[in-house]
Amino acid sequence: MTRPGRPTIRDVARAAGVSKGLVSFALNGRPGVADETRERILTAARALGWEPSHRARALSASRAFAVGLVIARPPELLGADPFFPAFIAGVERTLSDRGQALVLQVVPESAEEAGYRKLAADGRVDGVFLLDLRVDDPRLALLEQLGLPAVTIARPMAPTRWPALLIDDRPGVAAAVAHLVELGHRRIAHVAGPDHFLHGRVRRLAWERALVDAGLPAGPCVASDFSAAGGAQATRELLDRAERPTAIVYANDLMAIAGLAVARELGVDVPGQLSVTGFDDAELAGYVSPTLTTVRTDPFEWGRAAARALLELIDGEPVADVPTPPARLVVRASTAPPPAPPAQRRRPPAPSRSEQT
Amino acid sequence: MTRPGRPTIRDVARAAGVSKGLVSFALNGRPGVADETRERILTAARALGWEPSHRARALSASRAFAVGLVIARPPELLGADPFFPAFIAGVERTLSDRGQALVLQVVPESAEEAGYRKLAADGRVDGVFLLDLRVDDPRLALLEQLGLPAVTIARPMAPTRWPALLIDDRPGVAAAVAHLVELGHRRIAHVAGPDHFLHGRVRRLAWERALVDAGLPAGPCVASDFSAAGGAQATRELLDRAERPTAIVYANDLMAIAGLAVARELGVDVPGQLSVTGFDDAELAGYVSPTLTTVRTDPFEWGRAAARALLELIDGEPVADVPTPPARLVVRASTAPPPAPPAQRRRPPAPSRSEQT
Repeated sequence: MTRPGRPTIRDVARAAGVSKGLVSFALNGRPGVADETRERILTAARALGWEPSHRARALSASRAFAVGLVIARPPELLGADPFFPAFIAGVERTLSDRGQALVLQVVPESAEEAGYRKLAADGRVDGVFLLDLRVDDPRLALLEQLGLPAVTIARPMAPTRWPALLIDDRPGVAAAVAHLVELGHRRIAHVAGPDHFLHGRVRRLAWERALVDAGLPAGPCVASDFSAAGGAQATRELLDRAERPTAIVYANDLMAIAGLAVARELGVDVPGQLSVTGFDDAELAGYVSPTLTTVRTDPFEWGRAAARALLELIDGEPVADVPTPPARLVVRASTAPPPAPPAQRRRPPAPSRSEQT
Repeated sequence: MTRPGRPTIRDVARAAGVSKGLVSFALNGRPGVADETRERILTAARALGWEPSHRARALSASRAFAVGLVIARPPELLGADPFFPAFIAGVERTLSDRGQALVLQVVPESAEEAGYRKLAADGRVDGVFLLDLRVDDPRLALLEQLGLPAVTIARPMAPTRWPALLIDDRPGVAAAVAHLVELGHRRIAHVAGPDHFLHGRVRRLAWERALVDAGLPAGPCVASDFSAAGGAQATRELLDRAERPTAIVYANDLMAIAGLAVARELGVDVPGQLSVTGFDDAELAGYVSPTLTTVRTDPFEWGRAAARALLELIDGEPVADVPTPPARLVVRASTAPPPAPPAQRRRPPAPSRSEQT
């Protein structure tokens, strides 16, 4: 385990059979090195136990060799949302091969701008990820002002100079609604995330749009907050209505799983009397009863791709928006045809006249 | 929002009505400043928009003004375990008031030592947290060798020079078993976490010990991995046995929630035929059906306390082990007396003789 002297770039170059310059390029994560070559160099570096000296590099290049992530969410929700740890793990998977670190700040929503400002002022990071985009997000202008390179997670509504990781939740939501329509559902409700989060709003709009596309009337929507408590409360509201929905499309799995329990408690059989869909495909989705039909996303892969794009951007390369594989519907046991002799087939042309007298 | 010139320590001192030295002490998170005074200084600093210049401080003091956390877990599990995000959020709550950052590395278990080595070599951090302690943990010697201050999360089995956050899972597990024994259960199984994780082993030993204390014979134990898939598989194994347990104590909530679904699928009523307890009190525990009896811990508060201790240690203060409030049992709907005419009341003095012939 002890080794006489630290291995140098020269040692790595010799072991990999390439030039010192190419090793330097590869180890600094610069583009232009063929994947196979980069892999060979990284393997050689690992085998030799080569480690970059961060301080030496930072001094010579005036770079921090770190990227930043500011998360503005209540801690309770952080602990419950499977997105963050998976995304962060994906980011780390890219960073760790390139001698880069992740500097993380979790702050109250009110301190989010200050968080980015501080990362820039301290010179701690060379770039940042921008998550949880808001409608009219003030951070976009802030980052331009700070001159801090950024990759946005999803494309913001306003134009920016930063590349975006092109996450599109719409096809996933559309697939969930189409699946329910095909099963015969006509009254399809939505439990939404907060409307000021772009992904909350995008999923709600996708559900609305899918109902229109299917020729269905607008369904009931309850605004919630992505938490289990919020999902339970919203489910109660929907099931308390005189005209119950026969299906509920939830904006995330956590709310949907809480919804399953509320339905059970109220004696509403899932999927016999109520179909339920989630969004995320969290680990538990396949291990609740009934197992949850949901939309599978891949935040780990998103993290890897976003980190690759950010490092290229920091290196001064032109970076285009980064496509991601489309989310796909995973059909499990929580969806089925609606109950057989439904009153909900009544359509607007024939409203219940008794109510009009 | 624009302000002429950056506010200085002097401005903060004037606004808070204290000396510049005291401001410096307070803003650097050093002990010896009364809580109330520190709060007043921080409030004044925030109101003025004062921000420490990290580079200037790091150069003058040869400190990184950051602490490190290396997490060696498979990304899938990271996404499902509510401990990490809550612990990290707690750490951040302490760090953000002190102008400190968290440098995070998520690595494969095989690269964990290299992760700490790298943080130290790069001079990126002034200290680290040591999580997921192993039995005979090689990182303890490594950190001493690197001279990197550390706070261990839970007390390691071997003596160390580092202060420990005194997390003790044993009373929580003991309370869960005692609750089941009081309800009349005699055959109480355990679904354990990995035995090479200290918290996996500690919880298993606490369950074994509690059975002995209650005068009960050893119960069946299935080693698992803290994941939903593992919990489901372990539950199947236990419920497939000729002599089924009437209660299962799970080492975490995720496995317990997966266990509820398996029981339901096999037609085993919870809590009528099987009682189930978890560990964590994850957000979903109160929103599954039946709601989960579990042990409530407070990883957010642990993170805060561990960060405070680590910053004091880095400042060269003597730091004692940090006590934490004891975990407590939260009784919900997943536990009840065992089924009425049970064969399990047979005791060792009267073993089934037919089996002996």
